[in-house]
Amino acid sequence: MSFGHQVLATDGAARAGLLHTAHGAVETPVFMPVGTAGTVKAMTADQVRATGAGLVLGNTYHLMLRPGADRVERLGGLHRFMDWPGPILTDSGGFQVMSLAGLRTMDEGGVTFRSHLDGSAHRLTPESATQIQHKLDATITMVLDECTPFPATPAQAEASMALSMRWAVRSRDAFVPRPGYGQFGIVQGSVFPDLRAASAEALTAIGFEGYAVGGLAVGEGQATMLSVLDSAVPRLPADRPRYLMGVGTPDDLLAAVARGIDMFDCVMPTRAGRTARGFTSRGVLNLRNARHAEDAGPLDEGCACTACTRHSRAYLHHLFRANEMLGPMLLTQHNLTYYQSLMRGMRAAITERRLQAHADEIRAAWAAGNTR
Amino acid sequence: MSFGHQVLATDGAARAGLLHTAHGAVETPVFMPVGTAGTVKAMTADQVRATGAGLVLGNTYHLMLRPGADRVERLGGLHRFMDWPGPILTDSGGFQVMSLAGLRTMDEGGVTFRSHLDGSAHRLTPESATQIQHKLDATITMVLDECTPFPATPAQAEASMALSMRWAVRSRDAFVPRPGYGQFGIVQGSVFPDLRAASAEALTAIGFEGYAVGGLAVGEGQATMLSVLDSAVPRLPADRPRYLMGVGTPDDLLAAVARGIDMFDCVMPTRAGRTARGFTSRGVLNLRNARHAEDAGPLDEGCACTACTRHSRAYLHHLFRANEMLGPMLLTQHNLTYYQSLMRGMRAAITERRLQAHADEIRAAWAAGNTR
Repeated sequence: MSFGHQVLATDGAARAGLLHTAHGAVETPVFMPVGTAGTVKAMTADQVRATGAGLVLGNTYHLMLRPGADRVERLGGLHRFMDWPGPILTDSGGFQVMSLAGLRTMDEGGVTFRSHLDGSAHRLTPESATQIQHKLDATITMVLDECTPFPATPAQAEASMALSMRWAVRSRDAFVPRPGYGQFGIVQGSVFPDLRAASAEALTAIGFEGYAVGGLAVGEGQATMLSVLDSAVPRLPADRPRYLMGVGTPDDLLAAVARGIDMFDCVMPTRAGRTARGFTSRGVLNLRNARHAEDAGPLDEGCACTACTRHSRAYLHHLFRANEMLGPMLLTQHNLTYYQSLMRGMRAAITERRLQAHADEIRAAWAAGNTR
Repeated sequence: MSFGHQVLATDGAARAGLLHTAHGAVETPVFMPVGTAGTVKAMTADQVRATGAGLVLGNTYHLMLRPGADRVERLGGLHRFMDWPGPILTDSGGFQVMSLAGLRTMDEGGVTFRSHLDGSAHRLTPESATQIQHKLDATITMVLDECTPFPATPAQAEASMALSMRWAVRSRDAFVPRPGYGQFGIVQGSVFPDLRAASAEALTAIGFEGYAVGGLAVGEGQATMLSVLDSAVPRLPADRPRYLMGVGTPDDLLAAVARGIDMFDCVMPTRAGRTARGFTSRGVLNLRNARHAEDAGPLDEGCACTACTRHSRAYLHHLFRANEMLGPMLLTQHNLTYYQSLMRGMRAAITERRLQAHADEIRAAWAAGNTR
């Protein structure tokens, strides 16, 4: 099975398709739950599958430190380790490492850092980041890049983007091709259209199985984020999948799919699930709120998850008030089910060439709010 | 459906049967997972069912304080609240209340205490404890008793037992009979055979749908606990179920079933599951131990749970080291599956009249220990 994105329908810039991989095909646009340390937090692998997820993300930074890439490799790779035979995308580790303020130093060759777990010294280079992801057996490997700090001056952003492009070349050289596996380049350039365009063109010239847009959702705001997509996406090859990293809210997903993005990941649904925030067709609810204490109705009418079909808002409220693990467990299931349902709805709407109307309906229901 | 215990087979003092209730029948001897606050910790109701559990326990003390018995009643009862249509036994709240050293005062009428949650004042009497369990819709209601402190002098134990017997009368008077529902009396009397015998006879004279042995597993040791069973169990009516409260280790269960106990509850498998201790056919393992770090084999050969069929010891080790919720989730599933499997094996052995040989085999495998 060769790796590739098969576009089955388009609606404006939006695309619906199939991403073929060594570990099976997934429908796009796709949302990837984040399985940071070899587990989507508070979920068994079966429960993740039951939400409709087909592709999950693993964090190289966390996995390289614990349990370690060599150990995962000896244990048969990340798929077997976490019981996820489907495709897995791993990030390069760069984003987490560069967030270690005071604990890391960068140079042309790579980044040296200390583990947040035990202070041990490590170094991540384009080559080692690629090799680690190979050991993890990632279906999709990401290049090591510098996630440009926000805000940045044009000169800072250009220097940072140029470094990322040099690293992209080295990451590509280090990648060991295997049938059905792919490597994605990452567009940088902060909020500057010319830099984003140049980055997209530089990556296309190198040639990857897919292309990501990175360095967004860092405080620039949705309008700016979307304008960056307008600069970058049209310059990426139409026959390759496009991945918007670390995004986002349900509204962000609607907006980015309309601009031609095929793949997303974000901790939002899982993190919110652990902090009592539920995404619903009527907007976001905080289950700790006292108004849910005696509400015998479901969290979200029509949702097929366990939290909604088997329990009341009152029960979820009780679980969070009592700090019971089942609260985060059920609400994470719900939020991921909601996100997958949102993606499924967009895929259908693209096929029917009515994505804009579909998005308008969804946004109107959010705006109408909770009716009880 | 009338409430009752149908003995289908005996092997010495041991019995295998069916406990018929308004919420369905369960096979005995039965182990009840503890669902303290309306949830078996770290488990969805479906996952609890998948372990083979048919009867679960709820804690009146926790539920009366949060979410409150009136609220549970308004929401349709504990079965609907926690998605457990099967039978539920609730304790009286007495054990937890009497553990509130310094926060409670006892008198003939009952016990006055302050909530550990917010310091609010509450009073539990035989009548109110019975009424609260009615509001929770408990299939099996327990009488309010005093759990005699250990150690106690014979005089202290006798006075405490006598109070519990007076409270048993009042609890029985307060119980509202419903078809398929039952109320259990609780034998007290500390470690003194004559007091235990007297308590068993006093309760039998009152007449309950079942009988519990309380006040054990409080530090007296297994040999003493079993001698108490020898004093009490023969004096309980053979046609009623017998429940050993708060017990115990797998070995305790083997020994107590051989002495005619039909029902058990204990936090051990669930608590151990949250602290990385796994019960297996080869004894107890601590999954945090470094020797599991690269062990690609299952936690327990032959176990049908998700932890054993889908993951390695190395993965469980990683999850606990990384403080991931999935560690407690998977290991709680395993430990409850192990306990249910232990009970199922004993039921079959009783039917085949080879319980002693079966218990010897199980103990020999524990003693042989882990072979890798």
